Amino acid sequence: MQEITIVKVGGKVVETPESLQELLNDFVALPGLKILVHGGGRSATKIAAQLGVETKMVEGRRITDLETLKVVTMVYAGLVNKNIVASLQAKGANAVGLTGADLNLIKAVKRPVKDIDYGYVGDVESVQVNELMDLINKSVVPVVAPLTHDGQGNMLNTNADTMASALASALAKHYDVNLVYCFEKKGVLSNPDDDDAVIETLTHSLFKEHQKTGVIIEGMIPKLDNGFNALENGVKKVNITNTQGLKDGLNSGTLLKTE
Amino acid sequence: MQEITIVKVGGKVVETPESLQELLNDFVALPGLKILVHGGGRSATKIAAQLGVETKMVEGRRITDLETLKVVTMVYAGLVNKNIVASLQAKGANAVGLTGADLNLIKAVKRPVKDIDYGYVGDVESVQVNELMDLINKSVVPVVAPLTHDGQGNMLNTNADTMASALASALAKHYDVNLVYCFEKKGVLSNPDDDDAVIETLTHSLFKEHQKTGVIIEGMIPKLDNGFNALENGVKKVNITNTQGLKDGLNSGTLLKTE
Repeated sequence: MQEITIVKVGGKVVETPESLQELLNDFVALPGLKILVHGGGRSATKIAAQLGVETKMVEGRRITDLETLKVVTMVYAGLVNKNIVASLQAKGANAVGLTGADLNLIKAVKRPVKDIDYGYVGDVESVQVNELMDLINKSVVPVVAPLTHDGQGNMLNTNADTMASALASALAKHYDVNLVYCFEKKGVLSNPDDDDAVIETLTHSLFKEHQKTGVIIEGMIPKLDNGFNALENGVKKVNITNTQGLKDGLNSGTLLKTE
Repeated sequence: MQEITIVKVGGKVVETPESLQELLNDFVALPGLKILVHGGGRSATKIAAQLGVETKMVEGRRITDLETLKVVTMVYAGLVNKNIVASLQAKGANAVGLTGADLNLIKAVKRPVKDIDYGYVGDVESVQVNELMDLINKSVVPVVAPLTHDGQGNMLNTNADTMASALASALAKHYDVNLVYCFEKKGVLSNPDDDDAVIETLTHSLFKEHQKTGVIIEGMIPKLDNGFNALENGVKKVNITNTQGLKDGLNSGTLLKTE
């Protein structure tokens, strides 16, 4: 099977003009087929504040009321996505910006209200990659914003890590998929105060152990859940690294391993 | 050749939820291949005001400074485009939202400064429809926002009527293209105070005559210039109508004719 690399970038990397351009240079230099999945939370929070829309977060997740949904749709699918697409075109990659609504790529269900009403947040229901693969196979580079749709006309805010994992899983039936979570740190850290304390390989049971003992906490947990899900679904390689890791050919950072 | 219908919608039609849904129902009901090109100026003006970005218009054209470019990128490619894409998906059309940057569809040059500095406004330079046609031929419905790119990493604000005309012209080599400009009025009026005074057919020389005598003024002039350009470039049929005209099978309103 042909190889494809899915890079998820988020955090400051994607929202600082200089680091974004550097990242995109590294991304374009990756060999073979590729997809970029991006976040944009900082810009969304900033624009929301400018519009007088209050940002409410619960456990790192954005509560998405109707006004917030408009903001994230504007910022993720408009501002951040098209900025990346135009930059990639300038670097010679034929990019196309997509959300889960485009080409019916990722359909989701509005998260059921239990203890918390997350509002217009989507849990991935199905991934449809037929038209996406036609584009990819012509060397088009999809740039995916963290939004899905419910099939009833509504956009839904969806975690970018989850979208990358869902896409990787769906494509694993057709390609040898490398999934790279690219963020600020060198990898998953065994000590949050030591940026060099990178855990080089992580199995699911070791992850669960580290989670129990509090070595791995907060934002890393859903990222790793998503990474291990992808691995279970046949994704060939999942690693968590920073932009330097992209330069180093995807072998640095933390590599997730089956037991 | 296969037939394709390009509908350009703008104005209130696309920015009022009820009229948008009605329009999309009529659009989906059109037989055969199709493309939707949309505006979104009213929403852009509203969001700009909320963000404290001043809207400056010269002869109906938006002066697009860097802050305004951010607003139109958010509103056109994000808010308006994805709302339409999600709605079309709900109505059974496999829509994909695109700007001129996506798939390198429409490249433009920043308008040279003469008397007026329009800022980040793009004049269409080239149209590249290879990947677009692959999508169209799989019954995907492109939804095009009025933005282009300069090939150097910048998005540019571009008139939606012009984009529709440029797309129609490029596709005329491969399809029998119908181009429909859909707006509030029944067609081009011979008397701006009489909504029923529709000019049924218009040749280029009659248009120029009406322009000289002041029968056709302001916003209609660039629309008609774009329409006649399309006709000259081999587009089969160009007409200007309202949403009722879409229901009536594209034979109502004002039909542009070669001499």
